[in-house]
Parts: sequence; C-alpha cells; structure tokens
Amino acid sequence: METISCFRLSVILSIALFIFARPWYTPSKPGLLGCTKSTPWCTSKNRRTQLGSVLETQVSQPKNLPTDTPLHPLDPLTIPEIKKVRAILSAYAPFSWTFPTIHSLSLDEPDKSRVLEWIKGDPLPPRRASVIALLNGQTHVLTVDLDLGLVISHDNNPGSGYPTLSMDDISVALQVTLSNEEVNKSIMARGVAYSDLSCITPSAGWYGPNEEGKRIIKVQCYSSQGTPNFYMRPIEGLTVTVDIDKREVVKISNTDRGIPVPKATNTDYQYMAQDKPMEMEPLNPISIEQPNGQSFRVEDGHMVKWANWVFHIKPDQRAGMIISRAMVRDSVTGELRSVMYKGFASELFVPYMDIDESWYFKTYMDAGEFGLGVTAMPLVHLNDCPRYSYYMDGLFVAADGKPFVQSNMICIFERYAGDIGWRHSELPVNSFEIRESRPKVTLVARMAASVGNYDYIFDWEFQTDGLISVKVGLSGMLMVKGTPYENVYQVPISKEISGSLVSENVIGVVHDHFITFHIDMDIDGPNNSFVEVNLVKEETLPGESPRKSYLKAKRHVAMMEEDARIKLKLYDPSEFHLVNPSRRSRLGNPAGYKVVPSGTAASLLDLNDPPQIRSAFTNNQIWVTPYNRTEQWAGGLLVYQSKGEDTLAVWSERNRPIENTDIVLWYTLGFHHIPSQEDFPVMPTVSSSFALKPVNFFESNPILRSKPNFKKDLPVCRPASSS
Amino acid sequence: METISCFRLSVILSIALFIFARPWYTPSKPGLLGCTKSTPWCTSKNRRTQLGSVLETQVSQPKNLPTDTPLHPLDPLTIPEIKKVRAILSAYAPFSWTFPTIHSLSLDEPDKSRVLEWIKGDPLPPRRASVIALLNGQTHVLTVDLDLGLVISHDNNPGSGYPTLSMDDISVALQVTLSNEEVNKSIMARGVAYSDLSCITPSAGWYGPNEEGKRIIKVQCYSSQGTPNFYMRPIEGLTVTVDIDKREVVKISNTDRGIPVPKATNTDYQYMAQDKPMEMEPLNPISIEQPNGQSFRVEDGHMVKWANWVFHIKPDQRAGMIISRAMVRDSVTGELRSVMYKGFASELFVPYMDIDESWYFKTYMDAGEFGLGVTAMPLVHLNDCPRYSYYMDGLFVAADGKPFVQSNMICIFERYAGDIGWRHSELPVNSFEIRESRPKVTLVARMAASVGNYDYIFDWEFQTDGLISVKVGLSGMLMVKGTPYENVYQVPISKEISGSLVSENVIGVVHDHFITFHIDMDIDGPNNSFVEVNLVKEETLPGESPRKSYLKAKRHVAMMEEDARIKLKLYDPSEFHLVNPSRRSRLGNPAGYKVVPSGTAASLLDLNDPPQIRSAFTNNQIWVTPYNRTEQWAGGLLVYQSKGEDTLAVWSERNRPIENTDIVLWYTLGFHHIPSQEDFPVMPTVSSSFALKPVNFFESNPILRSKPNFKKDLPVCRPASSS
Repeated sequence: METISCFRLSVILSIALFIFARPWYTPSKPGLLGCTKSTPWCTSKNRRTQLGSVLETQVSQPKNLPTDTPLHPLDPLTIPEIKKVRAILSAYAPFSWTFPTIHSLSLDEPDKSRVLEWIKGDPLPPRRASVIALLNGQTHVLTVDLDLGLVISHDNNPGSGYPTLSMDDISVALQVTLSNEEVNKSIMARGVAYSDLSCITPSAGWYGPNEEGKRIIKVQCYSSQGTPNFYMRPIEGLTVTVDIDKREVVKISNTDRGIPVPKATNTDYQYMAQDKPMEMEPLNPISIEQPNGQSFRVEDGHMVKWANWVFHIKPDQRAGMIISRAMVRDSVTGELRSVMYKGFASELFVPYMDIDESWYFKTYMDAGEFGLGVTAMPLVHLNDCPRYSYYMDGLFVAADGKPFVQSNMICIFERYAGDIGWRHSELPVNSFEIRESRPKVTLVARMAASVGNYDYIFDWEFQTDGLISVKVGLSGMLMVKGTPYENVYQVPISKEISGSLVSENVIGVVHDHFITFHIDMDIDGPNNSFVEVNLVKEETLPGESPRKSYLKAKRHVAMMEEDARIKLKLYDPSEFHLVNPSRRSRLGNPAGYKVVPSGTAASLLDLNDPPQIRSAFTNNQIWVTPYNRTEQWAGGLLVYQSKGEDTLAVWSERNRPIENTDIVLWYTLGFHHIPSQEDFPVMPTVSSSFALKPVNFFESNPILRSKPNFKKDLPVCRPASSS
Repeated sequence: METISCFRLSVILSIALFIFARPWYTPSKPGLLGCTKSTPWCTSKNRRTQLGSVLETQVSQPKNLPTDTPLHPLDPLTIPEIKKVRAILSAYAPFSWTFPTIHSLSLDEPDKSRVLEWIKGDPLPPRRASVIALLNGQTHVLTVDLDLGLVISHDNNPGSGYPTLSMDDISVALQVTLSNEEVNKSIMARGVAYSDLSCITPSAGWYGPNEEGKRIIKVQCYSSQGTPNFYMRPIEGLTVTVDIDKREVVKISNTDRGIPVPKATNTDYQYMAQDKPMEMEPLNPISIEQPNGQSFRVEDGHMVKWANWVFHIKPDQRAGMIISRAMVRDSVTGELRSVMYKGFASELFVPYMDIDESWYFKTYMDAGEFGLGVTAMPLVHLNDCPRYSYYMDGLFVAADGKPFVQSNMICIFERYAGDIGWRHSELPVNSFEIRESRPKVTLVARMAASVGNYDYIFDWEFQTDGLISVKVGLSGMLMVKGTPYENVYQVPISKEISGSLVSENVIGVVHDHFITFHIDMDIDGPNNSFVEVNLVKEETLPGESPRKSYLKAKRHVAMMEEDARIKLKLYDPSEFHLVNPSRRSRLGNPAGYKVVPSGTAASLLDLNDPPQIRSAFTNNQIWVTPYNRTEQWAGGLLVYQSKGEDTLAVWSERNRPIENTDIVLWYTLGFHHIPSQEDFPVMPTVSSSFALKPVNFFESNPILRSKPNFKKDLPVCRPASSS
C-alpha cells in the first residue's frame, strides 16, 4: 500500500482543515507541507512536540491487520481490490484522458438476498465497488465489477448536490483564500500575524439562492497564536467565498472590524500545558480489569462474537462504523436469530442559530459533506477506550483513488460500570433469604469523529438481555463567535446576542445537533411490520369502579409510510415496535423489538427553511421506509450544495406499503445546545441515546441463568512486577 | 442495642410481607415464627438454605459503625438518642398508660440557618426528634427535645391520612386474613396448600369512597409452591379487606374462580436453582479495579469527600438516602461552594391500569406508605456494587420505639465505565498532533429498595465537572395478574386484557412509575431564582437572510409558584435554571445549575381521579416552592389513606413568591411500563435519570486540568496469590 505523506494525512484526516499558512504554501507539492525543524511554526512556543507519546494511541494489543482477501460478503474492499478498482477506472474510456477526483470508493454491498443466503465457506457474491467521482465539475456515480473488470453502471449528475468534499477541494479553498491580497490585508489589519493563522472551511453545504449551482465554499480564519485551541480565537466577520473549480475568490465579506480576536489565555487544553494544579483531591488510578482477558473475539477481521451476540462490523469513510447482520442466540433453543441487518449513523444536521452574514450558513451535514470515518482519528488507549479494548483500522480511499489506513479508529471492549443487570431481595425469613443480583456487563463498539471543533463519540452497546443501545456523545470544543463585549452588562438591551457570553469577547452560539440512524431491522427475517402501541386514557363508566381513569394500550399496525412518520409525544405516548408477524412466541405474541427513545430534541426550524428542507429527515423522530438499497443516506447521496430533493422525507412521500415487508427504521437523536461558561475552552461530553429492546422476542427473560460475580472469580488485582 | 429476632427482621424489613401461614401463627409471640429444622416448610424442597453465602453481603471493607455521638447537625439519631426519645415518650403523660406504636422516629433537622452557621468543632444545635405515633386509632405528630427531655410539640390527627404502616399492622392484616375460615376454604378450593401460601398487603393507600376513614388494608395471596418467585403465582380474584385496628375481616371479594394459579415452572430466579446452562458464551470475570484503592473518604460517619465534592449522606427510613450540604470546590479559587442543601426521593406513585375489584386500588405510594429505607436490604457485594465500595448501615426504629440496624444499605463507590469525560483530536500536522482525552470517573452513592416485587435502585452520581446525575433503576419482578388464557389467540376480541400475556395464565398489567425528588438547591447560598430559558423560533424578515428561521433563547424569571409549574415540551423546549442572582461570574452571568431531563413519562390519569389527586405532585414534571421545612413529602406527611389535601400540588396553589429567595425544586421522573415476555419471570433493570448541571457556575470548564490515564499509573493487574 501507499505510504501516506504528512500532507495527505493532514488533509485527509479532518474536515475542519486548518493550515498554518505560509507564502510558500503549494498544495500541488504536498511534501512542502511536511514541516521540518527549520520551518518557523514548528519551533513556535505553541507547538508541543510528540504529544502522541503522552497519550497512548499505539496499542500493543493484537489486532487483525487488513487482509488482502475479503472473507464475508460485507467486508470492505481490500487494498488489492481498491487498487484494482483504480486500475479499472483508469482504463475506463470517459476517464482515460484525465483521472477523476475520487470522492467515495467503497464496497457496493451485494443484494440483501445474496448476503442472507451466503454461508461461511461459500464463494463470495461478485465483488463490486461503488464510486463517486468528479471530473470537470461533473459528478459521476459508478458501479465497478471487480470480477468482470468493468464499469457496469454510470450515472452523470444525478442530483442538485455534489459529492463529499475531497482534501484537494479544501486545500484549494484555503490556498485561494490565503493567496488573496485583500484577505491578507484585512487579516493584518486585525493584528493577526500570518504565521499564526489557522483557516477552516466551516459548513460546506448551503449558502443561499445567490450562491448555488457551483462548488463554492466559505473559508474563515482563526488565530492559533498562544494556543492550539484556535477555535476559541475567531477572526470574526471575515468570510471568504471560494469557487473551488474555478480556483478563485468569489466574495470577501469583511464586517465587524471592531471585534477583537479573543485572548489565548487559558484556552490551551493540552494536559502538558497545564501549569496549575486542579483544585480537587487527586483521583487514584481506576480501570476496568479482566484478569482472564476479554470474553469476545473478532473473527475473520470483522465478525464479533460475544456472549449471545454475533455481528459484522466495519469502518466506513462516510458513516464511520457500520454494524451488520446482528444476531442474538435464543436463550432457550440456542438458535442464532436475526435482529438487525444493518445499522449506522446516516446523517448529522447541526444548524447554528445566528443569521449574520458569517453565520447563517452554518448548518452542517457532517456525514455527507465531510465523512464521519475519515475524521475519526486514532483512539487514545486507556482514555478513549479502556484497557481490554480491541482496536480496528479503517481502510479508506484518498482523492487519487489510492488506499490509506485510518488506524485504531474503532475500539471494541466489554463494559462494566458497576451497574446492576437484574436484582431482587426478599425479606430474610431465616433460611429463606433472597439476595440475588447480576452485574451488568455489555459489549461496546466505539468510534469518535473529530469533525472540526466537535468530537462525536458513537457507541453501539450490546447487552446479554438482547438490548442494543446506541449512544452519541458530544465533546471537543464549541464553535464560537467573536463579540465586542467582555461582560453581559455591556450588551445593550436593544442588541440581542445569538448565544451566551462564555468568555471575554466570545459568544457560544445556540445550536442543535441531530443524528439520524439508519436501522434496518430484520427480526427473524426481512419481513417485519411497524406497530405503534398507543397508551390511551380511558374513563370508567359511572359506578364501574372507584377509579375514574386508567390507560389502555392500543396497537396500530402501520400499513403505509405515512402511518410511520412519528413525532414523539410526552402526553400522547406510544411504544414503537418492529415485529415479525410470522414469528410468534409460544403465547402467540409476535417476535419484536421496540425503539426506546431517551432524552431528545426536535428541530424547530421552519419546514420551508432551506436548511430544514435539506435536512428534512429531522422533521420526525421516527420514519419507516420499505427497504431500498439505494436509500442509505438520509440527506441524500450527494449532500454538499444539495437542495433536499433526495432526502428520507422525499422518499417517504411516495407512501409505499410497509406492512409485513422488508422495512427500515430511521431514528433521529437530537440535542439543543445553549452554551455556558462550562463549555469554554472545552466541552465536557454531553450524551444521549436510544435503545432497541426485545419485546416478546424471547420466550422469557434471557438473563435468568446468567452468572453473578463471585469473589473467587475476581481475585484482588495487584500490580504485576512485569508491567 | 436490641438483638433483632428472626421475626422482627422478617416483618421490619419488607413491606411486601409474606408469611408462610401456619395454624399456630401468633404474632404476639414473635419467637414462634423463627423456624427450626423441625418446622415443615423449612425443609420443603423450595427452601434453599444459606443463599446468603452464595452472594456476598458480608463485606470485609472497613466501615464506620454507628457511633453513640452525633458529629454533624444533620447526623441521624444515634442508638442512645433513640433510646432517650423512647424514654421521654414513655414518660410523656398522654402515653404513660399505653406506649403508642411508633411509625416514624427520626432526627428533626435543625433550622437551615442553624445548620448553615455551624462549623465543625461547634457544639451541635439542640438535638430533636420528630415522631409519628399511633394510639387508639389516633395519629400523634410530636417533636421531642433531647436536651430538654421534653415533648415540645404535639399535634393530633393532622390530616386525612395515617402514618406509614408498621410491621405490626401488616402482621395483624395477615393473621386476621389467614385465621378466617372463609378465606381458608376458598384457598383450599383453588387447590393451594395452606403451607404453600404467601400473602402480601399490596397497595395500601386508597380503596375508594366505600372504604375510607379507617385503617383498612387489602390482603392478596400467592402460591410459593415450587418457587421462591411466588409473585408469578397469584391466587387471582381473592382479596381480603381487613380493619387493622378492629382486627377483623371487613370484606372478602372472591371472584374469577375459573382462573388457575399459574405454574411454577421456570419461575425460580435463584442462580443455584438454574440447572440448564445459558445459551451464550461465558463471560470472563470483569471488575472495576483501583490498584491504589479508593480516592474518596467518609469522615465522621457521614461526610463524603471526593475529588472536588463534599457532601453529607445519611440513610433514612422513609426516603432511603438523603444527600445534604453538597458542595463543590471552585476550580479556580478553591472555594468550597454550596450547590444543594438537601436532595432525596420524596415520594413514588405507581398506578396500575386495571379497574377490576382486585386491581383498581393498586396505586402505590411507596415512600409514605411503606418506606424506601426500611425496604432497602443489604447490597450484594461485587454484584449490586463493585469491589471498591464503601458500605453504610442505616439505623432505624421499630414499632416498639427501639433501634435496629439496616446493614449495608448504602454503598459508595467510584465508577469508571470506560466513558470519556472530554476529548478532542486534531489532524496530525506533523509534530502538532492533538490526541487529548480524559476518562470519566464519577462517585456514586447507591441504595436499592425492595418494595415487594419491585426493586428500585437509586444512584446519586457526582462528576468532577460539577454535574450531579440522579438515576433510578427498576428491577425485581412484575406484579402480575392471573388469567384463564394461555395464548393470545384464546383472548376473545370483545375481551380486552389490561396488559400483555407474559406467560401461560399470567398477564403483566400495564402500569406507571413516578419518582418525585425533593431538590433543595442552594447555589452559593439559599437565595436563588428559577429561570426558564425558552427556545423560541424566530422568522427572519424578508431580505434579512437566506435563512427563514432560527431559534432564540428567551429568559423568564419565575416570580410566583404558578410560573414554575412545568410540563416538559418537546416542541416548545426550555432549559430550567436555578440561579443565584447575587453571585455573578466575571462575565456577569448568574451562577446557576440547570435541571436536565432525560427520558421520562407523564401521568395521564384524570386530574380528578382520586389516586391522581393523592399523587397530584405528578401533575407536572417540575415544581418550585419556597423553602418550608414542613414541606418534605410530596404526597404529604401522612400518606396512607390520605385524600391528597397535603400534597405538593396543594402547597403550590398558595402561589407564594419564589424569586431570589430560598427555593426548592421538585422533579418527577416517570416510566410507562407495558410488560413483555422478557419481563417474566424477572425484569432486567430499566433505568432513567435526570441531571443537575452547572451553568455559568464555574468561570470555565472545571475538568480542563484533570489528568488523563497513563499506562504507568495503571499496571496490568494479575491475580495476587494472596487473594
């Protein structure tokens, strides 16, 4: 495989690409960006070296390295396969003159029926690649058959949107910005040294009716003088719009000159930069320990087997992490039963609530515009993931069509939080004393996407009682706005600010986060139904009871898509079941799973607001669609600059039948975020989750026979001299 | 202190008192209930011996035993103090002829001002006891001054309700029931052997207009033949109403003779009774380990000190666990700042949704009717709480006024779940590589009340970023209903059942759980305000922006109680802050905490339904009241048989001013529960939570300087030979 240059890593691995601008910046010569000891910014006081050695990202645990041979129909493309696709594309007539920019190149998953009928040992179904490429401003969506060595489908410009931004796109945007004389002048006018400049391409997706129909992007800059946490030092009011394909500045918006760049003081978050002790008692080391090692194993690179669960997991450049073929063993029969065919984070929507020239467009759609996998940096051992974690690398494709490794981007570990899986006590009538309790041990698959300032931590957690919990944690830093005010008393009553003053000259702008998951449940097979179990208040008849009221559960099977566009209601509550009407328990209850929401938030933007149209998948918390292999990305296949004509909301409008057929559940987890001073200069993790919980799937409680912890099995651990 | 006989333990320690009925049952001679090897039921095949030795409840960790001397104004009464109160009451004229039944005897906490001005080393404020006693059907509420040796206040029959049931009350109810010939006949007619009978007093609180104004209670029975999990074997339709004070059966309701007692097969949940292996891969032992031990300490018996937190914790017979004087150290100044004066579970409401004669009254109010502390059995080490837990005993008072120890009823431990407190990655531009991550380590105080079939797990969790999370887990077993049906296909369409068929002849009845917490926040002092920060959609003006809409945060300070009766709204969302308007950050933001709800449910019963009137504290999720030392119990001081004239809802109707004064926040956490087969024969823990989170309380993120995990501090643990 290709060696990844310092430059390529830098631009591939983050969308909030910042670059320490230099006059000699030349994106066409990537090597130049690799710094040497002689480049001035490398020796600047802010550039701490070798932090990688402080926090452990090199893990000594064994892990499967990517193999050259796929072993499962859903296994991602291997290095030789990626190279082969590149070769096929190079030889493909339309690209024979110029090789296009590759914006996506990944396995084109076989039809579900082929995957379902495949048994280990069988030959794999034909291996195909799905490619999204750009050439001369045109989008090409292709399918490549690796066995045939041919492009077998090719679609041009299939929608209003453009493919995920490539590193080259971002490099061009920054280069064009930083070579612009007017931009340079205004930055100098604000007292920021050119060598301290960090620029990013904040929100790529939508700029309004005057700026559409071309691949344009806005660039904003920060000062990293005195801190690596440049996000806290915005050069407010300077926004440069760049036409990527024409490589030119389209517009420079330069307002709010009176706003100072906020100070760097106390913004550095690095542990090594802290020179004051915390005002708290130190904590002793603490760890999740497994004296006999992990109880799970990863077979054939991607098949995870743990307790009663088996599932396939793979890194994905866009979705981050995809769980497939999740099956649980029946607690009575031992049968391995299908639960979920495929689950992943399909799209994010992060609108900021500020309509200023330099803020109105901040309506991120991070998965489709930038990619959650490509921004998932190596996890920090013992901090991002506990000791007995297994780390998995991603194998992704760069803009030139060549593979690169995203190392340690997923970790898998067993989680014990001191929680109780089940317990009961009875009163101690002499020898008949009941003290039963079972510890709750789960399996977690985790990744963390650093999409610029924000870090999104994704956990898929599997429980022995059959429950799957999907959790999203938000950490990292705020996206902040500069302001002339240093104190809330300075804000004139007539002037409203779009968020909270979180530091001097720094506003934490109000914003939302919505994360929409594609959950293709296949409960005991593909054909499932969606059932709303509504709790309805009933009034008693006069004389019928001393009670006046009670609740009754009423089941409604959704027949069409419109029956399954669900807005959660606290005062008209329902449970939402996915059931297999053909698979009944011995009592006649259909085998099912329910979606269990936890804390969430709804998007409140106007339904006709362009950002909301583009992210109309957030109009409801739950949708159910019939399975359609092309409907994977809730915001559409081509999200960047799209107008929302290919979203989940549009698909659902077709109002297809969804009863007793192969259906897909979509769930959106939401957060409103009104920042506070505690979010400055970094943001403690805020998280929420939802669960997929068995309902009448098992004949009875599956953990009944699970084992409690016994003292003899958990000898007190002492540091071993060998460690 | 008194030795607790087997009988006393049996009746004190659980409200779902069941008793293995015998003709010679004589509650006046407690010794007789202590079983010997010769009593037949002790050798029955169901009576497994010494299960206490299987799961560890005897802990070798050091713990503070109750001392004879209180060391803090809020410390619970000590054994000598309880004895002294008993002596004072014995000598008190109204009780000199007959000593009353003691239904509650605990510290009468000093006025808040006295507690706040007290400094360690000062003499304690006068020690007083609050006593609720019953004599000849009359309720007496007394205050006893220990120093003066006098009853200093005495109120008779202060409301429609009666005090918490005593063990004697329950014993009487069962004895009266089981000595009744008609009851015996009907039980035998159902084929249940007398020796297999287990009877309980399910829901004590409210029986309707025909059965009120006296201390009556309903008794229902189960068969424990073949299982300790008798809850799954109801003798459906037999309900005996007993007048406790008259010691007589008032009514026998005997319907549904056609309903069989469900089978015992597969209902035994004991680990030792499981003879089939689980259909899953075994899990290796897993543990939270702290090679250098705990980082917290418990001083003077009740003061917990950990990281930046200090708080007082005490067991309480009614509330279970009370956290007081929670203070956090300022991350910048080191100042110890007040956050919460007092927090505890004030009341539970658990209405079942079935209006049958034998079900309509099941509208539990567990704290006031039975007590959460008195039902909190010893926690099981390594299963209910992890290795490095500190266990605390409760010291409570029996009906005869004598003290008894509730051992190991609270555990305190540090929790590390593999989660991330804060993290951020940046792209690796050569030496400027950012991989920062901090593990999330918290401190948990836990208790678990076994209120009959249900086990309520209460966690108060403290984070180093200043957040307090309050979590309730529901486990144990369902309260089920017998039914003639063995299969859902047998249920006639015209006949609706009040829940789900969870096993043959067993319905899991739909029900709700509401847990209302009393949270007396004192943020930097008692005088706080309640602020609703409402997120409102604003439309842009034509031409103002390409955006049509955005959200704006609008602050409303609640002036009167009516302004703070909050129903949560997903589509009209708000944050709810408690702030100290006099304590401002350097930026001018008032120091505050916000209530952060998570998943919850609202009571949907008719507001005029008697159970809802009694539990009207669940009419809103949030209430704020001015501090009033008598307003502690959301359902009223005297809950059993009450009519709801002393609830939080009634207090709030006074509509007192609540701005910039000493206020109390009430938060209700709710669950709807539609059972499924997975809830049979035991119920995996379902939990939800809410949080109290600092907002502009700290000048900046307080965990900025916290330490990551380093490999050198966490040597790999190996079993030590000594263990």
